[in-house]
This record gives sequence, C-alpha cells and structure tokens, in this order.
Amino acid sequence: MRYYPDPSGGIDIVRVNRAIEEAFAEHARGHVQMPSKLYVSLEKGDFRTMPGYIPSLGIAGVKIVNVHPGNPALGLPTVMALTVILDVDTGLPESILNATALTDLRTGAAGAVAAKYLSPRPRVRLGLVGSGRQARAQVIAIGKELSISEVLVWSRNRANAEKFCESPGMPACRSEDLETVCDCDILVTTTPSREPLVMDRWVSEGTHINAIGADAPGKQELDPAILQRATVFVDDPKQAIHSGEINVPIARGLFGPEQVAGTLGEVVTGQKGRKRAEEITVFDSTGLAIQDLAIAAIARVSAESIDLPFG
Amino acid sequence: MRYYPDPSGGIDIVRVNRAIEEAFAEHARGHVQMPSKLYVSLEKGDFRTMPGYIPSLGIAGVKIVNVHPGNPALGLPTVMALTVILDVDTGLPESILNATALTDLRTGAAGAVAAKYLSPRPRVRLGLVGSGRQARAQVIAIGKELSISEVLVWSRNRANAEKFCESPGMPACRSEDLETVCDCDILVTTTPSREPLVMDRWVSEGTHINAIGADAPGKQELDPAILQRATVFVDDPKQAIHSGEINVPIARGLFGPEQVAGTLGEVVTGQKGRKRAEEITVFDSTGLAIQDLAIAAIARVSAESIDLPFG
Repeated sequence: MRYYPDPSGGIDIVRVNRAIEEAFAEHARGHVQMPSKLYVSLEKGDFRTMPGYIPSLGIAGVKIVNVHPGNPALGLPTVMALTVILDVDTGLPESILNATALTDLRTGAAGAVAAKYLSPRPRVRLGLVGSGRQARAQVIAIGKELSISEVLVWSRNRANAEKFCESPGMPACRSEDLETVCDCDILVTTTPSREPLVMDRWVSEGTHINAIGADAPGKQELDPAILQRATVFVDDPKQAIHSGEINVPIARGLFGPEQVAGTLGEVVTGQKGRKRAEEITVFDSTGLAIQDLAIAAIARVSAESIDLPFG
Repeated sequence: MRYYPDPSGGIDIVRVNRAIEEAFAEHARGHVQMPSKLYVSLEKGDFRTMPGYIPSLGIAGVKIVNVHPGNPALGLPTVMALTVILDVDTGLPESILNATALTDLRTGAAGAVAAKYLSPRPRVRLGLVGSGRQARAQVIAIGKELSISEVLVWSRNRANAEKFCESPGMPACRSEDLETVCDCDILVTTTPSREPLVMDRWVSEGTHINAIGADAPGKQELDPAILQRATVFVDDPKQAIHSGEINVPIARGLFGPEQVAGTLGEVVTGQKGRKRAEEITVFDSTGLAIQDLAIAAIARVSAESIDLPFG
C-alpha cells in the first residue's frame, strides 16, 4: 500500500482536464458505478463519503471529504480530503492519497470542461463570485481551455478579491462590485452562500455560469429566476437534486427536476449542448466520486509516495 | 495522521465485546449516525463503504471493505478492510487502520453480545456451520460471555472442520455432520451460502442462532421456516432487509420486514429479548459501521503506528 502525501505537486492541468472530461463521458455512457455520496453531520461540520468505480481506467475507490467552516480560525483548511484506491481484481487497498488539493483541481477541471463546451465564445471575460481556493482553481483550469481576456472578482471582503488578483499567474484581473462581475461571458460562483447572490437582472443573454458553491442541502448562489431562463446541466441528477444549486429551488417549488436539460457527460458526448448564442447555460456542480478517481489515476503515476505495510 | 498496520495485536477481547455492546446500545438510543453501507460491484468481487459517527465516543469515520471470493487462490484473504478515522472537530484525517483482523473481531463480538443476551443458558454446546476465520472469532468472543461445554463443527470440506478443532485455545471440539451440529444451544452460521444449509427440523426449541454469513443480496444460510418459528433480531433493519439473512426470504415473500422483532441494540438496552426458554431466537448480523468505529477506538489506544504527513 502506498501513501501519497502531496500528489498534486507538478500535476499537468491539461491532462487533468482531459481525464475529468473522459470521466464525465463514461458517466454519460453508463459505464461507471457511483452511488450518491453519503453525508454524516458532525457538531462543527460534516463529512461526505464518495465511492466509485471507472472500469475503463481500472480504478475503484472512495474519497472521504469534510467541510468544517470554522477550520480557518484554527489554521486548517475548511475542506480536507483523503482518497483510498482499491485494486479492482483483489480489493486490496493499493493507494491512499492526500486529496485536499486534488479536490480543488478536479472541481476546477469540471468547470473547465463545462466552459469548453458551453462557453458562448473562445475568448472570454471571466466573472468570479467568491475569491477562495476554488475560484483560483477555476481560473487556472478554464485558462487551459479558453482564452481569458480579463478576470473580474467579487468577494464579500474586498481585500480578499484584491489579494486574489495579485496571485501569481493570474490574467488581467480586478476587484469589482457584484453586479459588474456578473456582466461577463463565463460566471463562476464558488461561495458557501445559503441565499441567492447573483440576481437575474444582472445576467446577460449568452452567459455561461459554473455554479460550484452549492454542494449541500440548503446552499444556493443564484436567483432561481436565472434557472428558469437558463438551460441547466448538472454533473449527476440525483446529487444535484439533493445538494446542488437546484436543491433549494426544487424544495421551494421554484424549479422542477424535469427542467434539468441533461448532464455534463451528455454535453461532452455530444448528446446535449448550447443551441443558441443568446442562451444562458448553467453547469450545476456537486462533485462526483469519479472525478476523484480520475485525478487519482493521474496523480499516482508520477507523485512521490511512502510504502506502508498492509497484510 | 497515523497508520496502524496491525491494530488487533494484543487487543483485549472482553473490552472489544463491551465496546460493541455499548455501540449497539447507542444505536438503539438513536445516538449514532450511520447511513446504510454502499455496495460497488467489481468484476471479481465487490467493496462496501461504511461511514458512521458515534458522538459518545467522539469517533467518526469510514470503513472500506472488499469481498473477493477468488482471493485465497492468489494467497490473499477474501475480505480485507481499511478504516479511516476523522477528527470530529475539524474533519482532519487522524488515523488509518488496517481493519482486516478488526473486522473479524468486531463481527465475533456482535455474535458474543447476541449470545450473552439471547442464549437459553449460561453453559452451552456451540454448533458451527462453517469453519473459517469468522467461525474462530465467534468461538473466542462467545467464550468470554458464556461457558462453552463443547464445539461441534461442520464444513463442506471435513478436513477444514478437523483442522479448525485443532487450532490453539479451542474448547473440546469435534467435526460432525450438518444435522448433528444443529443440535446445540447456540448455532453460528458463517458461510457464503446462497441456499439454505440449516433445515428447520434440525433446530430444537430454545436454540439461539447467530446468522452471520449472509451479508449481501442473494445470500442465505437458514431454511426460511426457521425464521417463521423464531424471534428474529437484526443489527440494523435497513441493512438486514437489503443484505442480511432475511433478504432472500423477504424478496420471495417468505418473511415480512414487519416480522422483525427488534434490533440487537434494543435487546442490549432491555427493550426486547428472549421471553421463553423454548423460544428460538435468531440474530441476523450484516455488520455495522459503528462496530468498526468502536473497535478502532480501542485499537488506536495501544497499537503501534506510523506517523504520516498530512497537510
């Protein structure tokens, strides 16, 4: 059994994007196994257990990931993750990966795949609602698929948005108010909000939105009126209905599960997609176990590891 | 983060039995969180993902366990397991335990707790259907709760039963035919059978049965007529209906979920139990995540571990 303490070091983002794209395609083809993730609530947060199997990659395993909003005050990340990979032929635990940074990257890659297929144009103005680790992962991953002319960032704390713009490798970037940020080609929301932040009237025709932040019941970032105007794609229908951007609008009768246009996998395989330039498209991301397995498959090849006895 | 390669070495079986007993009691009190385990099928076996949280012990985590029937031919155990423990306050991965041997012990302990409360008498003749690792774990754990006068063992391969009797620390033990083995006070079935092995006419009044082997849809070891005569307790109703001894009889309309008398936790807390000496009682064990957490909590205290970087 091998432990990978830092499997994201030096990972090739383009390869990650392609691996995640292929994982979504396999999902659309019905070639993967992936029960919906299980949530366990703790006093100060929760943890989610995400098993899966991608036969075409010969990889099976489980990601375990927490969300503890009070962690930054303790000097720890809000989200930490571990992935366990089993040998498919014997079930032997084969690899354990620190998956904290991999989780950022595989979520960024899903956003990049959605942007690649659903962007209204190849050169884009990118709007960011939220300026944390995931916002950065989205910029980096999307930048491998599309040409980013400029980045507009809003954060509840303006200083965070300004600091974000100064981070290395960032394209032309400036902090803006929320409404201005929403005037863009690709809008990416990455906050833990439980109330809509992005209002319908701020979103122009043709915009593509990656709705990333909502990943648990009760969370939402978009005015439900946007979902009514938009063509809404999800990563996985069951998970999205339970915990994605659409979960609150569905619970309140403001959106129906039957209004989901399809999955990102169906977009990748060409069954679904943007039909008109003025269409607003939304990708509702909850995060899939198969994304974690696909990135683990890449990371294991080159990252340094520690050998552990198991027997 | 600490890795425990051999956490069962030198573990105190009496302490394990008490910890498992308390975990079942907490389950009956509704004081634990435990979603039903998730199954993922692989070509040559399957793996199960079992998250849980026991607030009274301050322990939360996930066991991952496979079942690959072809493994012994490759020199590997059929069942191997890993448990990941998270710090409940921060979600940080705190411990990883090789849980293969712990899985045997915690299942044995569940059988011992059931036998302690449901045995018709304190000194018992123990009948075993199946002579593998779990049969041995049951004898050891039950031997801490009751006085075992003799052990009768049946195996499809008689040589295995004879070898079983010669294993160190075994009480008076002999290999017998299946019908003779069933004439006992406590009968323990631990096979992977998909057809009933134990016939109704072989089971006398007053017998307690630990039905351990059936842990996946399609598996069964007991003639469904036994379940009709018996008072049937389960570890967890949802899991038992899905994958326990009662799963096939329920699917075939030979037993109803409403005929389940209660849970082992309700027996431990005194809400349910054996009412008459001549009653046949059955404990249908599927294996609970909270058993894995309870034994991990004990093992972590004294076992040797390897420090791993996680950050």
